[in-house]
Amino acid sequence: MAKFYGVGTGPGASDLLTIRGKEVIERVDCLYTPEPKKGGKSLALQIVTPYVRERTIIKQRYFPMVKDWDEKQKAWNEIAKEIINDVKSGLDVAFITLGDPMVYSTYSYLLERIADHVETETIPGISSFSQISNHLQIPLVIDEESYAVLPATAEETILQMALEQLSTVVLMKVSIALPKVLKILTRLDLLEQTILVSDSSMESEKIVIGLSELNAEDDLSYFSTMIIYKNRTLKG
Amino acid sequence: MAKFYGVGTGPGASDLLTIRGKEVIERVDCLYTPEPKKGGKSLALQIVTPYVRERTIIKQRYFPMVKDWDEKQKAWNEIAKEIINDVKSGLDVAFITLGDPMVYSTYSYLLERIADHVETETIPGISSFSQISNHLQIPLVIDEESYAVLPATAEETILQMALEQLSTVVLMKVSIALPKVLKILTRLDLLEQTILVSDSSMESEKIVIGLSELNAEDDLSYFSTMIIYKNRTLKG
Repeated sequence: MAKFYGVGTGPGASDLLTIRGKEVIERVDCLYTPEPKKGGKSLALQIVTPYVRERTIIKQRYFPMVKDWDEKQKAWNEIAKEIINDVKSGLDVAFITLGDPMVYSTYSYLLERIADHVETETIPGISSFSQISNHLQIPLVIDEESYAVLPATAEETILQMALEQLSTVVLMKVSIALPKVLKILTRLDLLEQTILVSDSSMESEKIVIGLSELNAEDDLSYFSTMIIYKNRTLKG
Repeated sequence: MAKFYGVGTGPGASDLLTIRGKEVIERVDCLYTPEPKKGGKSLALQIVTPYVRERTIIKQRYFPMVKDWDEKQKAWNEIAKEIINDVKSGLDVAFITLGDPMVYSTYSYLLERIADHVETETIPGISSFSQISNHLQIPLVIDEESYAVLPATAEETILQMALEQLSTVVLMKVSIALPKVLKILTRLDLLEQTILVSDSSMESEKIVIGLSELNAEDDLSYFSTMIIYKNRTLKG
């Protein structure tokens, strides 16, 4: 029986996929991936390329990154329909998504349109912040500590509450809300407790420990994540 | 140059290791793992067994799970010293730890005792709650949502704050603080928004959706995790 798989590719390095994820990529007949803005291969596709067989059909599809909800829904409906048809015609299909499929992924919207029609299975992936903390070898949490994961675009009261109450805070999508984030971190005197990482585990990886030299106007990579470690001494 | 590796084994299934983690296990000369209470193989060791070569030296070591800080430190100091000696004698050594090494792992205490003496590298793993959300195909977070990960043993004010303010809350180590957790979830009317999973991705896995039939006296597996999904409709 043909099946639809969602596979988390992890943060960027091909060997940070799970073994289960790799085996699905090797097995499927058809691989869907978001189409990058500037043409060429999507980052998710680059990550899994070592595991893709020559005969696998690659379908890069356009997901509009716009505020217009109708436009987005229209695209998701069309892609979901195409995937359902592929699976019903007997093809095993995978959709690949950066990081983990259950954390801020467009995959969620595809899945809810597909799950009632064909069999589905979702395979976890390493999130960027997990790889960052492991690479730097600075624990996210020990003992009774807690951490939160928030989009930098969350309400300011929520960001402030998390930063005040929890030991460690992960901020995703910081490139699109940098001025707000810097304002709050400055107010709470947490700039020097913050690590900024772009393109984690990729060749272009950049790590900044302590943000005192960062400006609100700076242009960050879309794949930028901050970890605010309130309980750790960070080495500059 | 010999090296010390920390490897996250993921939640329980052998194929949920990362490819990088598997390759380290295959390569090292010596594998350290916590010794289980009742003898036999530790769970972490069972998970990686398919990747361990016959000639690899296995060292199961006892980590006291007690409140006495001195007793714990003494054990960590001794095991760290043994590992440093092994690496300095030219052996590649790995320590395996359930889930992710940077999330509530005793590995953190070993690492801080070892990192100044020999080269170290830490490889991430899938956390139990990540596998749970992927297996159930219920997103942890979408759009502007936020989630927090807390030990059930955290202060009640922190637990309440997270449950009131954030979309999704993950509670670890629930078996040792079940009465407190049930009291708070009842007070906030969140029992039916909660999923309880024991032994995620293992053969003994148990999933309970909605907690109205759970009692404070119930005996849960040590590896039990709750996810409180405030924004999802859970199917019972």
